[in-house]
Amino acid sequence: MRIEVPREAERLGATLFYGVQQVYELDAGLVRGEAEALDRIIQPVAYEAIEAVCSAMAVVVPVRGERIKLLEGVLAGIPHACLVIVVSNSDREPIDRFTLELNAVLKYRRLTGKQVVVVHQRDAVLADALVEAGYEALLDESGRVRHGKAEGMLVATLLAALAGKRYIGFIDSDNYFPGAVLEYVREYAAGLLARHSDYAMVRIHWHSKPKIVREALFFAKFGRATVVTNRFLNALIGYYTGFETEVIRTGNAGEHAMTMELALKLSHASGYAVETRHFVDLLERFGSILENPSPDVLDQYVEVFQIESRNPHMHDISKGDRHIGSMMAASLGVLYSSPICPPELRAEIVAELRRRRLLRKDELPPAPTLYPPLERVDLEAFAEGVAGEPFTAALLR
Amino acid sequence: MRIEVPREAERLGATLFYGVQQVYELDAGLVRGEAEALDRIIQPVAYEAIEAVCSAMAVVVPVRGERIKLLEGVLAGIPHACLVIVVSNSDREPIDRFTLELNAVLKYRRLTGKQVVVVHQRDAVLADALVEAGYEALLDESGRVRHGKAEGMLVATLLAALAGKRYIGFIDSDNYFPGAVLEYVREYAAGLLARHSDYAMVRIHWHSKPKIVREALFFAKFGRATVVTNRFLNALIGYYTGFETEVIRTGNAGEHAMTMELALKLSHASGYAVETRHFVDLLERFGSILENPSPDVLDQYVEVFQIESRNPHMHDISKGDRHIGSMMAASLGVLYSSPICPPELRAEIVAELRRRRLLRKDELPPAPTLYPPLERVDLEAFAEGVAGEPFTAALLR
Repeated sequence: MRIEVPREAERLGATLFYGVQQVYELDAGLVRGEAEALDRIIQPVAYEAIEAVCSAMAVVVPVRGERIKLLEGVLAGIPHACLVIVVSNSDREPIDRFTLELNAVLKYRRLTGKQVVVVHQRDAVLADALVEAGYEALLDESGRVRHGKAEGMLVATLLAALAGKRYIGFIDSDNYFPGAVLEYVREYAAGLLARHSDYAMVRIHWHSKPKIVREALFFAKFGRATVVTNRFLNALIGYYTGFETEVIRTGNAGEHAMTMELALKLSHASGYAVETRHFVDLLERFGSILENPSPDVLDQYVEVFQIESRNPHMHDISKGDRHIGSMMAASLGVLYSSPICPPELRAEIVAELRRRRLLRKDELPPAPTLYPPLERVDLEAFAEGVAGEPFTAALLR
Repeated sequence: MRIEVPREAERLGATLFYGVQQVYELDAGLVRGEAEALDRIIQPVAYEAIEAVCSAMAVVVPVRGERIKLLEGVLAGIPHACLVIVVSNSDREPIDRFTLELNAVLKYRRLTGKQVVVVHQRDAVLADALVEAGYEALLDESGRVRHGKAEGMLVATLLAALAGKRYIGFIDSDNYFPGAVLEYVREYAAGLLARHSDYAMVRIHWHSKPKIVREALFFAKFGRATVVTNRFLNALIGYYTGFETEVIRTGNAGEHAMTMELALKLSHASGYAVETRHFVDLLERFGSILENPSPDVLDQYVEVFQIESRNPHMHDISKGDRHIGSMMAASLGVLYSSPICPPELRAEIVAELRRRRLLRKDELPPAPTLYPPLERVDLEAFAEGVAGEPFTAALLR
């Protein structure tokens, strides 16, 4: 991979948001002896360095009824060195969809020797282990882990921590292009290699998203929800720095990765709020904005890298665009509900959502459901709770 | 890359056609110490081995007015280790499109340090050098290299030979997915690594080709022209082996690579006939079918690998499907015109083309224009003819 050094950055307290970085080559080779030239804006990232990060990374693939053909393509795209954690919330009845997925993945694992773990997030063993570990927040009234993609991602993060992984990345299971999956994981690695801090995150800014417009393909660059989320996140940052900015481009980036240290420290949101919440959480706790600083004062900066992929992002579009409105409302709800949101911005958010008919006259933007940071989980107790399960054996292989 | 060993093969004389091989992982890692297990049908191909092949490979990108944005993506997808030869036949007037391309590529080369050479196939220097080299067949009445993609590919093959490359691969310049380009080149390398012979070819069988059908995407697996070409090629092979077969799946595969030894030995066709002609040429000359064997009796088998890519093939579909008919007629014309085509097959070809209204009652299938093998070119004279040109300097870098 050959990638541009970030040209700009915005700093607030202990947070550091880098500008979008472009990719010039998907494969820069082993880069034997091609030294880092400090005066060059475009740097090679050696294959062996990327592979070293991959072998310390768990890639989480959340599944809920996506076509198994697509899941198999995603698995083919993830580098062999990664640990893959497929966390499924697919139906078990009337037809047991999960067993289909499990069998497909086990067959794939046998054929390739790749380390792939499959777990159903509603498995009672997981819920019981979470109770033992003192983290019941994830459970619903039935005593199982809640439905929802964010909840599955949190369970998978704990499993990755159990497996001793240093990094965790997320890849959607409905991607039509295994080559795009491979690219995202490499970009995660390239960003994580450039970090100076133990607390770092990489977010992918999609090159484009092909849409069907008048019987032809149109490569849309700007996601409709993302544009709005980014505008308000940038306004928030500008409010406190005093400089207008466009630095944030990945307010709704589902494709992202982090160091385990950061993943355990964040307080994650559920639903469509999860990605936007990352930024707001970082600013609330490490942005030195609030008068009572969080007890988690860091001795390091939190670094957020944003990398623009080269491949278009082509996922299952049969789901359509029904969720754009909910995504926008949830994302802006995250900002609105934060104590760091200035009143001027609150008013603008309400106006924006009303104008788009996403909010009735008497309503306020929805507050996100927040989970306490995963660092409060007693990992040893959790490990004991899942000991002996087939997925645990596969994790610790 | 992790790839299946071919399960079947058809042999005719000194030709060996392997069945389609599937890919299980795009990136199998450095595969340190993971030995080739002879009892396994799916084998890892180590990154370092792929890179070694890439550094001996020229990747040819024919261009004719494709959008430069797409060309840049294709360049980003080709591994750094390859020599890239962009051979353009774009217009030079009224607007000089070629200079736009040249500047874009030179900028890309400066930014990445990748070895990229750009040449216009109508450049008088090339034509004059071909005359000096005793190979005027490529020239038209104006004394320049003929228009046409196949002709550009032949010029580029000579340039690759000048650069001392051992392998040559072809990638179309209108591919929307850099990740698919990367995959194709790696598959070229994986196939070439598996060869036992100096005469080997790798052809890509596309995973699928997304089409817009009723405002949704449909991933077509079977190209309409290709299905027909393959059927007749398989019938031809079955006629001589006595066993019906489906081994040929890549009768019209534009994405292909070969050893330089094989590229110099083939007699290439022009136009849409070029890819189908590969098969027919191999069978004519090395299939031990004709009574007077060709003077080129080989001491080795010619191996043809067919690899099924994992990524869908998404190219510029604005060109539409106008060319399906011409492609079918040209491909079947290649078979029809060959001395190895039995009379029964000739009759079937005529019936097929008439049924599809690609042939009038009084017409016969079109015979391809064939060029003599490039091994007849006096490479030293050609080198002398292009010495001192900027593209030659870049080639020999």
